[in-house]
This record gives sequence, C-alpha cells and structure tokens, in this order.
Amino acid sequence: MKKERLYLKIANIIEEQIANETLKFGDKLPSIRTVQKIYNVSMNTAKQAFLKLESKSLIEPRLREGYFVSNTSPRRFPLPSVGKLLSSPDEKPPDDLIDKVVSSMTSEGITRFSLGTPSASMLPTAKLNKGIFKKIRELNNSGTSYHPVQGSAYLRRMVSKWSMVYGGGLTENDLITTSGTMNALFHCLLAVSKPGDTMAVETPVFFGTIQIAKSLGLHVIEIPSHPLTGVDLAALKKVLHKITVCCFTTNFSNPLGSLMPDNHKKELVNMLAEYDIPLIEDDLYGNLFFGTERPKPCKIFDKAGIVMWCSSVSKTLAPGYRVGWVAPGRFKDKIMRHKLLQTISAPILYEEVIADFMEHGRYEHHLRNFRNRLYANCLHFQRAIEEYFPDNTKISQPQGGFVLWLELDERIDTAKLYDTAIRKNISFAPGRMFTLQERYHNCMRLSFALEWNDKLENDLKRLGRIVKNSL
Amino acid sequence: MKKERLYLKIANIIEEQIANETLKFGDKLPSIRTVQKIYNVSMNTAKQAFLKLESKSLIEPRLREGYFVSNTSPRRFPLPSVGKLLSSPDEKPPDDLIDKVVSSMTSEGITRFSLGTPSASMLPTAKLNKGIFKKIRELNNSGTSYHPVQGSAYLRRMVSKWSMVYGGGLTENDLITTSGTMNALFHCLLAVSKPGDTMAVETPVFFGTIQIAKSLGLHVIEIPSHPLTGVDLAALKKVLHKITVCCFTTNFSNPLGSLMPDNHKKELVNMLAEYDIPLIEDDLYGNLFFGTERPKPCKIFDKAGIVMWCSSVSKTLAPGYRVGWVAPGRFKDKIMRHKLLQTISAPILYEEVIADFMEHGRYEHHLRNFRNRLYANCLHFQRAIEEYFPDNTKISQPQGGFVLWLELDERIDTAKLYDTAIRKNISFAPGRMFTLQERYHNCMRLSFALEWNDKLENDLKRLGRIVKNSL
Repeated sequence: MKKERLYLKIANIIEEQIANETLKFGDKLPSIRTVQKIYNVSMNTAKQAFLKLESKSLIEPRLREGYFVSNTSPRRFPLPSVGKLLSSPDEKPPDDLIDKVVSSMTSEGITRFSLGTPSASMLPTAKLNKGIFKKIRELNNSGTSYHPVQGSAYLRRMVSKWSMVYGGGLTENDLITTSGTMNALFHCLLAVSKPGDTMAVETPVFFGTIQIAKSLGLHVIEIPSHPLTGVDLAALKKVLHKITVCCFTTNFSNPLGSLMPDNHKKELVNMLAEYDIPLIEDDLYGNLFFGTERPKPCKIFDKAGIVMWCSSVSKTLAPGYRVGWVAPGRFKDKIMRHKLLQTISAPILYEEVIADFMEHGRYEHHLRNFRNRLYANCLHFQRAIEEYFPDNTKISQPQGGFVLWLELDERIDTAKLYDTAIRKNISFAPGRMFTLQERYHNCMRLSFALEWNDKLENDLKRLGRIVKNSL
Repeated sequence: MKKERLYLKIANIIEEQIANETLKFGDKLPSIRTVQKIYNVSMNTAKQAFLKLESKSLIEPRLREGYFVSNTSPRRFPLPSVGKLLSSPDEKPPDDLIDKVVSSMTSEGITRFSLGTPSASMLPTAKLNKGIFKKIRELNNSGTSYHPVQGSAYLRRMVSKWSMVYGGGLTENDLITTSGTMNALFHCLLAVSKPGDTMAVETPVFFGTIQIAKSLGLHVIEIPSHPLTGVDLAALKKVLHKITVCCFTTNFSNPLGSLMPDNHKKELVNMLAEYDIPLIEDDLYGNLFFGTERPKPCKIFDKAGIVMWCSSVSKTLAPGYRVGWVAPGRFKDKIMRHKLLQTISAPILYEEVIADFMEHGRYEHHLRNFRNRLYANCLHFQRAIEEYFPDNTKISQPQGGFVLWLELDERIDTAKLYDTAIRKNISFAPGRMFTLQERYHNCMRLSFALEWNDKLENDLKRLGRIVKNSL
C-alpha cells in the first residue's frame, strides 16, 4: 500500500466508526501514538489520518487533551433570538420568581437543572480537604488572626501566574481577593457608581447582576447580545452617552453561553476608554472553555485601567469557599478601602488552600477533566433536548460554561411551567428571571453540570413532556 | 474561741495578707471550702469571714469564679473629660492617621498597644483547630457547597441559647450570621440609611464606625459620653430630631470602656422607639465583663424591633475567622437580601466550629479564664501608668473589654508622639483617630490584651518616658 492510501484507509475506518456510532460525538479518540501502534504505521501517517478527519470536521483537537469526535449531526434546532435593546422605566424586577427558584436550589431529592453551580460530585472535595489540613498546620496562628486587607499574597501570586497563560500580565499587587465573584462585583459597583447612575448589561443576563444593581439604586440598560458572539457593540454604542458603567460576561455569558471574539473585546475596551466608562468584566466561567484554549479577558486590552476583571473558583472548585478576586485597575485604592471597612479582613484559610491547589498542578488537572465532562454533558443535553422537546424549540450553542438557554413556543410561560415541573421533582430557571423587562416568558436556563446518567436523561425526557403537554 | 471571733480572726489574717501584698490586687482568694479546711472551721464561718472582707471593699466576688482582691489603693489619676456635643460640618476624617496606625498593627517586633484584638497567645487556637478537623469530616460536601444565606443554623441556635443567660430571649430564626461585627454594622447601615442621613455615635468612638458612615455618605453627630456610664441621654435627646440612626456600644465602649446602666438602656430604647429611630447595638465586648455578670444588651428592652443587636467572636476567640451575627429586629428581610446579593452565601466552616465550641462548654471555660487575665492586666496597666506617666495624666476605668483611654497634658499631640514611639518599637492608637472633629489630640488608646510580663511593663515605662520627654 502506498503511504497516501494508508492514511486514507485509516481515516476511512475511523469515519466509518463515527458513522455507525461506534465512536459517538463527544468521545475521545485513541491517541495518535495508539493509532500508530494499532495499524503499525509511522507517526506521520497516523497524524495525516487525523488531519484528514479534522479537515472534514469529523473530529476536533483540544489542547493537551487529544482529539474528540465533533458534533457532526446537523443542528435540528436553531439558535435563540437576540433580545431587543430595552431600558423601559417600567421595570418589573422578577424578585419573587427568583426567590422561589433559588429556594428550590437547596432542596434535596429534586433534579436541579436550575443550579448555578456544578453538582458537588463533579468537584474535587477530598483533595481540597487535604489542603485544609495542610494549611491549618502551616498558617500563622492557624488563621485566627487578622490578615492583610488585600488578601492572601500566595493566592494573588498564583492567580497572577495563571493569568500569564492568556496574556494577562497581572502581578500579585494588581489583585484584591473577594468573597466570591458577586462580592467582587458589589465592590466594583460601589466604587464606580452612585444611586441614579446607569449600568449596561447583556440580555438575557444573570439575575444576581440586575438585583445587585437595583439594590444600589442603579438603572439598568439591557444590551442585545448574540448567542454566539455576545454583546452587540453597535447597539451598545447608541446608548453609551447614558451609561456610567458596563458589566459584561464576555467569556461564556450566563445564560447564553456566548463568547465575545477577541476583536470585539478590543473594540469594546477602546470604545469604553474613549468615553471613560469603567467595565466590570465578570470572567468566572473563562476556565471552562470547550475550544482549544482559554479565551482572553478584556482586561488584557486595557491600557487605561478601566477594566475591573473579576473571577473566582465558585464555578470550578468550591462554591461554598467564597474565594474570588478582582484586578480593579485604577479603582484599586477605593475597593481596598471598601473591603477594609466592610469586613476588616477576610478569612485566609480557603484562599491559601486554593493557592496551594493551583501551585501544585491540581487545579489544571481538575479543569482538564472537568471541561471534558462538561463538554460531553453539553452534547448529551443538546441531543436529548432535540429528541424530547417540541420541534419549534430553539437552543443555544455554548462554547464553555455549563448552562443552556432554550427558547420555547411563545405561548408557553415558563414561570407557570416551573410550578408544574417542581411538583414532578424537576427544577429549572425560568427565562423571566434574566431580565427586568417583560420578556423571555417562553425561555428557560438548564444547567448541564450534573452527572449524566439514565435517570438524568429520563428527567430531561419528562421535562420535554411537561413542555409538550403545556401546549 | 467563740464563733464571732473565729470569723473575725480569719478576716483579719486575710486583711493582713492584702495589706502586706502577700495577696495583691487582682489575685484570686482561696475558695471558701479551702479556707474552711485550712482553719478547720464550718463553711458558715468561712463565708462570714469573706462577707466581712467584702463589706470593707477589700475583696469582691465574681460569678462562679470566687473572690478576688479589690483595687483598694486610691486612684491617683482622675477619669478623662467628657467630650462635647459636636457635629461641625467642618469634619476632618482622620483617614491618613488611621491608615498609618492600622498598617503598624501587622508589623512584628513592635509592642502593639495599638491592637484592637487580643494577642494571639491569649486565644485558644489549638482547641479551635481540633474543631476544624472535626467539622471538615462532618459537613455536607465538606463545606464546598453554598449554604443558606441566613448562615449556620447550628451557630444561630447556640447564640440564641447563649442569649438566654442575659435574658435575650432570641430564637435561631431571629439571627443572621455576618462576616464579623463590622460587616453586621455595614449591613445594618445599608438597610436603614441613605446618603445624607445622620448617624449618632458616642464620643470618642471606634474609628471604623465613623469611616464606614462616611463611606456611605452619612453625617455623624458625636454624642458626649461619660467614661463610666456611656452616652449622655440628655445630650442625645437634644439632637434626636436630626438623627436617622444611632450606633452605640453600650457594653464596654471602645475606646472609653464605659458601661451603660440598665435603666439608661431602657430609657434609650424607649426614647428611640418613640421617635422611630433604629439603634445599631455593637455588643462585641459584652462577654468580657469584669463584674459579676454579663451586662444586658439594649436588645432585651426592645419591643418595637428597632434594635439591631450585633456581635461576634472577633474579640474573644478568633478575629481572623470573621464570624459575627446580628439580631436585626424588623429589618431582617432587608438585611438577608443585602447579604444574599453581596456574597450569595458565607463560608460555613468557621461558623460551625464556633457553634461546636459554644455547645460543649469550651467557650464559657475560655471566657472565664480570659476575663480573669484581662482584669488582672487592666490592674497591672493602671498601676504601671500611675507609676510611669506624668502626674497630670487622666485614665479611664473600664468595666470590661481590653482598652484604656488616656488623656495627657493638653500640650501633647499624640499623633506626633506616635512617630517617636514607633521608632522605639512601641505603637499605640492616637486620640485623633476616634473623632471626626478637631479634638482628643492629647489622648491615646492602649490595649491591655497583651501578655503581661517584665518586658511589657518596661515598654509601658518607656512609653511613659516618651510622654514625659515630649513636654
């Protein structure tokens, strides 16, 4: 056999395996070295076979993780619509709905597609515990004394080191630790706005962001956002003159899962710098990418110090630890003072445990596995929803994170549907939670950071039936 | 010997021991049972001897701790003056001075009379660590998951149980946990005030309280406060019409150490209820009493729900844990919402560790020893200051807590004196930190929650010399 034929033959065999679903989409392929040994060919031939398959979009590489079967089945369901630019003074905060759904999040015995954090079984709790035992022994006075208000230097050093991966270029002195990302957001808002000011957010947007804005007396403008590329910059530009501060999740927004392209990020930062409008960048999902590399934050395009980059380990390691941080650019002094006055000092134990976890490669190792599981779950969910939900369903195509946004038949009110579902021990997040305006009644957010198994698939099937029955 | 003579004879022997300083003031006397055995007399006779000594004010009982030698030496130094009612719009926040002094608090190698927390060596750190190891094993998901926003039910149950001791009558549902007392204060202020409102505080007052008020855009009225009995209610009454909220430390105010009598507390609460003015009661020193029983908080006189009772273990167990709580009366819902929005959830580990410490009697045991040490230190400090400081020094008579307030010759500027002292490795808190007005330049606060030993006495002597030299 000639060399060309050889690699084509191997590619054909694998293509056949994909076609007959011996290899399903989301599955990891054998490594190039394994293929080389199985077929007794050169490394080069094995590589060529993979490149051939990749060129046909049948498989896709992921950094340091090898090749995976792509989602080759044509999408049956289209993307959800883009929300309109709305800032009606006739806002209706969905507080009661949020309270109801949030209270269900701690109930046991129900399938919580409503969750905003990964299922505890997907987190490396035992390994983190080891870190606690170690750190209790190492910490000065075992952590019973006050700590510097800026937070653990060890954690700040690790986060700044980590930021190098995507060109962050932060130093430990650029960072302040916070009690999770929401707390970082709160500090940023307090530093740059006053009651009566206006904040721009994506739409749909995480409900906590609009609730915190309202609690501080801010107006909110919801900027149209594309399910794939995020904030519509042209729409934003139209209202810039009204805006005091922006708060965007450029990497895997919640609930859309959109990823703002780098050139948009750069344009956004330049535009805001020109108008001297601070940007709170909520980058808490950035490490949960499905692509080949960690997306960049806007922060790296920020020369004027207007970007306040916020992140945490709440979505990746331990929500309950409340370990987050902010790189607040030129607002650092103000935020340090607010943190000092509001809590004097933060408990340092968990910050040190996380830093230790990062330094010794455990965080990277966990993230690699976690991302694979999330991506596989995302594909499972999309397939199941295409199978069990009505034909006119629209569904997002997240490129990271762990939530899906569904747009259902417009006659459906998901707030009512929620009550039906919860009686059948299923919870989800109704669309109305993600806006201050009267819209998204027919939408829902589903978390896929849950253990995939037959029961879960059956629960999606049951949820699909509840949707169908409501029509 | 007749019975009368017998008890008198014993009383005389002990009186003699006190006179020749075999028993020094602050020392614990042998128990009544021991005295009974030593002198081979009846319990009753031993008791009568003690009563005789008590009637002469030579000894004093402390609840469940036995009898102690009283401070019988006449005070050489008078009490500090009472500050005037001031709310000049020409406020000068002492932020720079505070920053300077606070930054010295984490420096090693200097004697920190400036500290606002007990020396780590006086805290039961090893015992708390045991609690951590226990709780990590017991907690659901080891504490990595989100927790209910109201905070650990176990801690709230223990705090409410504890509150029974002084007639608190709180239930676990009346309480919300916070990240220390300052965080409780912040939540309370956010719930009941808006920028432009006016808050009344004691004078002198803890600098953190005025800084947090200014950061929220509040005006501050400093109410005259007596070094022994606290807030002057007549003075407060005069300005009630201007006030939105009061924030007082009725039990062992910082820096004066005053204790508001129960009838004042009752009058205060009734007066504020009549005007519908909320009271933030900062009761973080209440458990550190030198008298026979835990003083009551204003909260127990509160029928209208206007008192927000705040406390923590920052001054008694572990400042770095940031475990505090508030019983917010009728403002509970508002404060719960603020807490939710600002941090989603609080780490529960330390809250559970403290609850466990409380439940198993360890807190009470620690407090009993800690109070004895603090009281002895207070007497040591007062004696040393009378010996080493200028004759025109005035000094407070704290009835609990661990700070002394000194008023020096009015030509002295303690802010300048601070720079001299810090060069000689001694820090203290200059008086100007404790007011927004131009006053207390000649005052200083000294913490006595430090290990008493020859070095510490010598450092007080050196500080006295620095004061004398500056005249």
